[in-house]
Amino acid sequence: MAESAGGRRLLRVVILGGGFAGLTAARTLRSVPVEVTLVDRTNHHIFQPLLYQVATAMLAPTDITAPIRWILRKQRNTRVVMAEVHSVDIVRRIVLLDGDVEVPYDFLIVATGSRHAYFGHDEWEADAPGLKSITDALNMRQRFLMAFEEAEKCEDAAARAAWQTFVVIGGGPTGVELAGMLPEIARGALRSDFRRIDTRQTRVILLEGGPGILVSFPQELSLRAARDLAELGVEVRTNALVTRVEQDAVFIGDDRIATRTVFWAAGNVSSPLGSWLDAPLDRAGRVEVEPDLSVPNHPEVFVVGDMAAVVQDGKLVPGVAPAANQEGRTAAKNIARTIEGKPRRNFRYVNKGNLATIGRSRAIAEFGSVHFAGRLAWVMWLGVHIMYLVGFRNRLSVLLQWGYAYFTYQRGARLIVEAKTDNQSPSTG
Amino acid sequence: MAESAGGRRLLRVVILGGGFAGLTAARTLRSVPVEVTLVDRTNHHIFQPLLYQVATAMLAPTDITAPIRWILRKQRNTRVVMAEVHSVDIVRRIVLLDGDVEVPYDFLIVATGSRHAYFGHDEWEADAPGLKSITDALNMRQRFLMAFEEAEKCEDAAARAAWQTFVVIGGGPTGVELAGMLPEIARGALRSDFRRIDTRQTRVILLEGGPGILVSFPQELSLRAARDLAELGVEVRTNALVTRVEQDAVFIGDDRIATRTVFWAAGNVSSPLGSWLDAPLDRAGRVEVEPDLSVPNHPEVFVVGDMAAVVQDGKLVPGVAPAANQEGRTAAKNIARTIEGKPRRNFRYVNKGNLATIGRSRAIAEFGSVHFAGRLAWVMWLGVHIMYLVGFRNRLSVLLQWGYAYFTYQRGARLIVEAKTDNQSPSTG
Repeated sequence: MAESAGGRRLLRVVILGGGFAGLTAARTLRSVPVEVTLVDRTNHHIFQPLLYQVATAMLAPTDITAPIRWILRKQRNTRVVMAEVHSVDIVRRIVLLDGDVEVPYDFLIVATGSRHAYFGHDEWEADAPGLKSITDALNMRQRFLMAFEEAEKCEDAAARAAWQTFVVIGGGPTGVELAGMLPEIARGALRSDFRRIDTRQTRVILLEGGPGILVSFPQELSLRAARDLAELGVEVRTNALVTRVEQDAVFIGDDRIATRTVFWAAGNVSSPLGSWLDAPLDRAGRVEVEPDLSVPNHPEVFVVGDMAAVVQDGKLVPGVAPAANQEGRTAAKNIARTIEGKPRRNFRYVNKGNLATIGRSRAIAEFGSVHFAGRLAWVMWLGVHIMYLVGFRNRLSVLLQWGYAYFTYQRGARLIVEAKTDNQSPSTG
Repeated sequence: MAESAGGRRLLRVVILGGGFAGLTAARTLRSVPVEVTLVDRTNHHIFQPLLYQVATAMLAPTDITAPIRWILRKQRNTRVVMAEVHSVDIVRRIVLLDGDVEVPYDFLIVATGSRHAYFGHDEWEADAPGLKSITDALNMRQRFLMAFEEAEKCEDAAARAAWQTFVVIGGGPTGVELAGMLPEIARGALRSDFRRIDTRQTRVILLEGGPGILVSFPQELSLRAARDLAELGVEVRTNALVTRVEQDAVFIGDDRIATRTVFWAAGNVSSPLGSWLDAPLDRAGRVEVEPDLSVPNHPEVFVVGDMAAVVQDGKLVPGVAPAANQEGRTAAKNIARTIEGKPRRNFRYVNKGNLATIGRSRAIAEFGSVHFAGRLAWVMWLGVHIMYLVGFRNRLSVLLQWGYAYFTYQRGARLIVEAKTDNQSPSTG
């Protein structure tokens, strides 16, 4: 047990999850006199906003990940443990890791994120994988590339058409970004590679259950995005609620779409850790936290990131990277203030703006009352994402891949490797 | 069925395997009036000489691979099929793919390579994986990085020491290159990342059953390589024949080495396809081919690359990339000459020189009677490998990773993703 200069035992802060929220919390505690332990089930932090580019063979997994140890290597008061969290004993204030390792805490920050949800149809996951972890992304990439391989081998026209039809379920940012990339790859990168199939005949269908896509944006931008997708060759269907997913088809009521490749970007459910915190949960399993982000009746436990249900001005704070970072910072600062005997501050989400890209050279941007779209928004999107990437090497490498793809219309990461799909507990990466 | 200008049916050449030998054969047939079908079980060509750098977290899989379709995209007379070869019917001249797809041929080029062999101890593979495919490399990387994670969690000193001990079995180029890289990573890249373990205490042991390492090189270079490895901190043991491999130990007779991580680079066995060619096989399962690289009594079937046992001047032609390329070219040219009614030419291996690198800034080089070692050899090694990499993007990306690692002592690809290990038939990648 480490000792502070004064000889008092240092208070122990345990952080669960090395995503945006958990990592920012750890970094904020750098110079606070506490002992920090960050637990993650993987060894790497993922830059989630670009995960879909790994799934679409644009980037390599290593381009958007960085070892958590490496990120925190200079932070001497912080220890990183790669392990699966078994449970949290909120009464004894102990985190139990797999292998019966007990990690006691004085303060706990839970940031284990969310996982894609199938609205009570978990059996759909096998045919409609989601996108949360690197393994998910490699699995998607494999299915996407294999579909063309199967189509090329296929003798039957109808079966071939099904292999060349891709359905993306969910009109949020992930679904739109996935769908927007597929036509370009099919018509550009793959076109000259196949002899039997015409990759230009590839169909990409985006299904959204609600009335519009990217509804978190102002309506004119959401409509613009739908128009852009249509121009790229994506069939956008709104008010299209999926009722069944099978190996070779997706159903919207009686409407059957023959497809062999379905990607799920429709719903999230929070990490099950919430259920151990004896805290009120909302429908998606998020923890309804206090204004200071702590758990009701447990001022020593904080929940941040996708796991936290933070209501501000009557609206839920969105599950985006900037919000996760801001929440992680606030939780860490409130721990520091508590130690210093100062009153805690309430969390306030500052929306610095929203960007979403729709395939090559297109994006939409919202900065307060300023809304715009097109190439300028796209360039801003590129800049912001490069800027926030962790690690100089990653920035350079991503720039290289993007430049290569932009000028050659090729894809640098068209590698099919069978990755073990993790149907395990929610990724804390 | 395609027709040549003359209206004759085009002869069909089927190539099995998209490694160096198969790919070179396909490229050599570019302007020959034949229908070429290249079959590989993966979608990518692997630059084998750098595979160990994927295993040691230096490079990403996509840096050393390129889609075979993409490499051959401009070669209109060539079709690529991604499929597993089920069998070859040498009498009916048909290749049977999984899924009962029949591919008839007039000429067949078999280049399905080799797989690591355990000298009748296949049960060792689970604890001592080898290195042939990208999946193998990712599996090795995962074990290598996880060993440090486990050591960091480990309470027991002896167990921790076993996690920090790495054993490489086999003193050929792959074994030497693997062993040479490990100390640098342990002492450099990982040193500041761990709090409990001292990564400088990492032990790397290279075991060679014979009297020396890199025996394909002249003795003074082989001795120099051993000295270089020792200076890097690798314990080199020659005449050390492994008698048993277990989950937590390697045995040389009664001598027990406690280790949790063992890598196998000791032996190869040829792809089992040879057994379908009713041809004479040597001890390693290689096909003993005619001087023109065809199979005895089957002038329409050629075997090239690691699968072929080619004896020249009483010595076996080595299983290296240049030899594979030369054999693939000769087989393809002999098919062209046969079609043109010209006599076939016998294969003659031209040794353009040998290079092997031993960790950072060290290598040995042999060009005929010119032998040298050290930094110059290392720079030549770098240049040659960049030069022969397929694809501009890969060259640029590898340069970036190498430059980054050289100047920062960091590793860009320290990503642990569970890759499904393929204990399937030999990789034809």
